[in-house]
Amino acid sequence: MLVIGDEILSGRTREGNGHHLAGVLTEIGIRLIEVRVVPDVADEIVAAVQTLSAKADHVFTSGGIGPTHDDITAECVAAAFDTPISVRDDAREILARHYAETGRELNEARLRMARIPDGAELILNPVSAAPGFKIGNVHVMAGVPSVFQAMVQQIRPGLKGGAKVLSWSLRCEIGEGDLAGPLGEVQGMFPEVSMGSYPFVTSSSIGSVLVLRHADRGLLQDAAQALRNILAPMGGVASEVLPEDA
Amino acid sequence: MLVIGDEILSGRTREGNGHHLAGVLTEIGIRLIEVRVVPDVADEIVAAVQTLSAKADHVFTSGGIGPTHDDITAECVAAAFDTPISVRDDAREILARHYAETGRELNEARLRMARIPDGAELILNPVSAAPGFKIGNVHVMAGVPSVFQAMVQQIRPGLKGGAKVLSWSLRCEIGEGDLAGPLGEVQGMFPEVSMGSYPFVTSSSIGSVLVLRHADRGLLQDAAQALRNILAPMGGVASEVLPEDA
Repeated sequence: MLVIGDEILSGRTREGNGHHLAGVLTEIGIRLIEVRVVPDVADEIVAAVQTLSAKADHVFTSGGIGPTHDDITAECVAAAFDTPISVRDDAREILARHYAETGRELNEARLRMARIPDGAELILNPVSAAPGFKIGNVHVMAGVPSVFQAMVQQIRPGLKGGAKVLSWSLRCEIGEGDLAGPLGEVQGMFPEVSMGSYPFVTSSSIGSVLVLRHADRGLLQDAAQALRNILAPMGGVASEVLPEDA
Repeated sequence: MLVIGDEILSGRTREGNGHHLAGVLTEIGIRLIEVRVVPDVADEIVAAVQTLSAKADHVFTSGGIGPTHDDITAECVAAAFDTPISVRDDAREILARHYAETGRELNEARLRMARIPDGAELILNPVSAAPGFKIGNVHVMAGVPSVFQAMVQQIRPGLKGGAKVLSWSLRCEIGEGDLAGPLGEVQGMFPEVSMGSYPFVTSSSIGSVLVLRHADRGLLQDAAQALRNILAPMGGVASEVLPEDA
């Protein structure tokens, strides 16, 4: 995923689209392998689109597709694919209809939002009309969270995931430092299961949440049982969150 | 900045350290030029550390310095600098004192947190003792937000910033599409001032917040006045947030 915008890097805006996309992709069974946040600088955007497009099956961008001069994502993505960009009739019609309905003028600035690289498919925007687009393996979407989420909803049926990765959480009141040895042992028994541990501190206790991740529920069950056994002498597992049925 | 952790990319944890760091760096007058989030995969971490260390004056990492097997940041950073890493006496002493005080055992897993690359300086951790470190231009810090923030506080006096960038916000009830033309004009008059526009929608109005950023307060003042003038016929600026005195 590529997030574009000075406002994130200056600390003015708290990035949340990455978190939303991560959750959706995990549900679909697509592994998010990297998130990059870059400024509104053409060279940086072009380079990042090219790098990520070569590295990943899909790239999702967020931000920089509005009407103002600092919105340069569309032309940068076109440049990254070495493709011309211009106002396209289908996109112009969507905007014309929207602004006619809302009684505003489709001026030159707004028309910038109808510029679509040649050969791209539109991603519809049910919130505020101005569309995103998909070119190659890059999905170009808005930065405004409600619009980003609506666009993700639009493209979701077209994304083919692998088996959904299931997540099994075990919470125990054992510090990470005491847990690390046993957890490493169980990881050795189940090398294919991703195991992470996340410490917590409450007013009355310290502990860790262990998260096991794999697409195979049976394998997770076996790994969870191995953890329960090995942690039993140390106080055991206090609670568990089982994966929802896929 | 480099954020390390599967839990961010899976959507389990919402990343917030980037936002914290962005705010602090902006206050100091250091421009954050990129944030990358990578998984707990050694090759990815090593490559990202090398790339970002070459690209930026400072690199700040978050995550992966705990005691468990999935905490591999320290050895990856050592590998990125082609430097040996081992348990260091000063770090071991800090941990020994902390665990003695809290009545826990400094076992082999916890001792992993005393492994520091040769030649690195420690970054103290007043929250939970286990230190971060600085090697070359890379500051290696914890992922737990309270610890990350405490470590940023530790290194802050050593970071030399440029002139603090001031931010002047003008809120107006004018849609971005109507605003884009005039804003572009004023940007042309003040090319050195960074100008961004951020749309908002409330139940009763739509509008935009214009944010002008530059270190020179006088220049910002002039740019703000130019915007007020040009927007006056369209309804004008409703409210402003002036920069705090640097």
